[in-house]
Amino acid sequence: MSDPTISILTDFGREDTYVGLMKTVMAQICPDVRFVDLCHEIPPQNVLSAAYLAASSAPYLQPGAVLLAVIDPGVGSGRRALAARAGDIRVVGPDNGLFALLFERLPPENVVSLENSDYFLDDVSTTFHGRDIFAPVAAHIAAGVPLEELGPDVDPDDLTGLPATDVHATSREMSGQVIHIDRFGNLITNVREPLLADWLDGESPLIDVCGSEIPLRDTFSSVPQGQPTSYIGSTGHLEIAVNRGDASRYLGASQGTDVHVRREPRET
Amino acid sequence: MSDPTISILTDFGREDTYVGLMKTVMAQICPDVRFVDLCHEIPPQNVLSAAYLAASSAPYLQPGAVLLAVIDPGVGSGRRALAARAGDIRVVGPDNGLFALLFERLPPENVVSLENSDYFLDDVSTTFHGRDIFAPVAAHIAAGVPLEELGPDVDPDDLTGLPATDVHATSREMSGQVIHIDRFGNLITNVREPLLADWLDGESPLIDVCGSEIPLRDTFSSVPQGQPTSYIGSTGHLEIAVNRGDASRYLGASQGTDVHVRREPRET
Amino acid sequence: MSDPTISILTDFGREDTYVGLMKTVMAQICPDVRFVDLCHEIPPQNVLSAAYLAASSAPYLQPGAVLLAVIDPGVGSGRRALAARAGDIRVVGPDNGLFALLFERLPPENVVSLENSDYFLDDVSTTFHGRDIFAPVAAHIAAGVPLEELGPDVDPDDLTGLPATDVHATSREMSGQVIHIDRFGNLITNVREPLLADWLDGESPLIDVCGSEIPLRDTFSSVPQGQPTSYIGSTGHLEIAVNRGDASRYLGASQGTDVHVRREPRET
Repeated sequence: MSDPTISILTDFGREDTYVGLMKTVMAQICPDVRFVDLCHEIPPQNVLSAAYLAASSAPYLQPGAVLLAVIDPGVGSGRRALAARAGDIRVVGPDNGLFALLFERLPPENVVSLENSDYFLDDVSTTFHGRDIFAPVAAHIAAGVPLEELGPDVDPDDLTGLPATDVHATSREMSGQVIHIDRFGNLITNVREPLLADWLDGESPLIDVCGSEIPLRDTFSSVPQGQPTSYIGSTGHLEIAVNRGDASRYLGASQGTDVHVRREPRET
Repeated sequence: MSDPTISILTDFGREDTYVGLMKTVMAQICPDVRFVDLCHEIPPQNVLSAAYLAASSAPYLQPGAVLLAVIDPGVGSGRRALAARAGDIRVVGPDNGLFALLFERLPPENVVSLENSDYFLDDVSTTFHGRDIFAPVAAHIAAGVPLEELGPDVDPDDLTGLPATDVHATSREMSGQVIHIDRFGNLITNVREPLLADWLDGESPLIDVCGSEIPLRDTFSSVPQGQPTSYIGSTGHLEIAVNRGDASRYLGASQGTDVHVRREPRET
Repeated sequence: MSDPTISILTDFGREDTYVGLMKTVMAQICPDVRFVDLCHEIPPQNVLSAAYLAASSAPYLQPGAVLLAVIDPGVGSGRRALAARAGDIRVVGPDNGLFALLFERLPPENVVSLENSDYFLDDVSTTFHGRDIFAPVAAHIAAGVPLEELGPDVDPDDLTGLPATDVHATSREMSGQVIHIDRFGNLITNVREPLLADWLDGESPLIDVCGSEIPLRDTFSSVPQGQPTSYIGSTGHLEIAVNRGDASRYLGASQGTDVHVRREPRET
């Protein structure tokens, strides 16, 4: 059996020792653990970007991996801390919607509220539950502690959701929004490939973002340099990019910007 | 026994291969080493932030770990390079004050000046002692080389200190300063919990930063969103934050900004 | 034998999960692999900086290591993907010039075009060959798959080069350019030490960058704080720095800026 893996997603950045301290804590509880840094540069407290990155990473994680996600603007305020099984991974993090998109695809099982302080550090600060609660719990899970040891069951229907991440479709248009902007300025939307293909039913779309009408192509290098295009990105979501450019700046779009998909008018 | 651990703290950032090269060097000297990146985004040449992060990380490091810290504006100028034991860890880095706060809590033993070039790379550049001296020495220590092999003893009293990191207290006020600003814009001061509690002797304080009077609460989520508060942070230092905001921008504070603690006036 | 090592160089940054996903893919193919992050913050699509960092890292890599480099502005456009042996390492990445400087020093052998999809992920996206092609191929190489399994041979003379990275020398001056700017604002040029020493033949040079005439010293701390100097950097290239400052800002220089080396006029 291979070493246990903990994949980590935070908004702690790299300017501080927050991530490093979580790892020193975990390596002492589970010495043969392998860490994979998924991302620590989520914009501070941006639960929506975190939810997208958690959901789109899940299919690639090692079976048996623990996904430790700490984007936790409500630390210290009494928000629930949770662990759960989802598909063949386990997740650990605050109950603030950051697993909402992941749970849509991999329904949660064995959801528990982290309340058994035997699995926390001895001293729990009010501001850094990543180090004091989530990291040690994730390491204990990786080392074999069963979820039911960690605290009482939670009804999955009681979990906190995300505001406004639904796609709305009428016969005339499908409306979604930008949920994440990546390093290259590419806009990732909440419109996913199967839903879009079903709605288009073989017709060609035009994508309206900030008043620009953008075609759908196979990839961003299918259009001339400097031109925008949309395509189904590597996570199965509709994305908008500018070939060798920055779509966010080019279009003036940001997280939350509306995206409208319409059928291309037929020539008459 | 678990694998040897080297925890690394630098200002080398991630835009270059500096950190990666140190690791390739170390992994060839000590193949079973585990690296923990504490932080590489210390503002260039900011020895004070580095000193704070080194000191506040030490209690969480694996017993036996090597703390390799390279913030080295004086590289090539003849500043001393050192290794030492501190508590149950060993530290390696330049003698420029960056271990000063750590040594206040864990007095150094076996301090040596790194002069035995048998433990350096064969070619030592004038500008990158991190790769050529500090990394190989840290890896040799992790692999079991005793400190006394590395060079002559240094009297701990001769080590370089940090300018101006003392807290001054009178009966009327306690004065410290901001020593580090984290990714979230939180202000970390040099006022530590035991000293503050002792001075307050049960009374409530007001914290004056840039002319704003700020209360002391349990944590930043104890005040409404957008409001500043102070609290004892996860490293035991007095911190100032704005709930879901950026205290540095809100207050116009930077590293070195004065912080005054006064007793809250009693109502009459 | 020590564990196989994959050293990784990308422009994927840390704002997304791109690097983390490549690692989860690789760890499942080659469970005992060690990853070394060389750099992920190469400016997006900056093949020249990547080429410099790849070439200057190569001498320090573990013998037998795989250098996985993904700076791939042409992904999806039909550019060739390659693997090759160079010295005692193997390299994997797009054929767009990013190994050109490395191959000048370590001539490539066993160059192959990555076309055997048995070593790719089952589903290959159009935009993220890092995760779907380059990472799994690198992991298979680390796990022992011979290069010839991966696709047809490529003539090394057919590989894509880099534009404009040559140094020109006349008897009066040697002209090169800034090829990389590091985190500290130091300017790294394409003028390398042996060529420069040969041309100078014992005379002292003045380095002209943006109209400033800069002396050559042993290191940047050989001049007063705030003053610019040039020196042979830790990678053997002529560099320009400002002692405890930022040469890029001080001189107004950027990647591609011309650098002229002249012999210092003798006093008469």
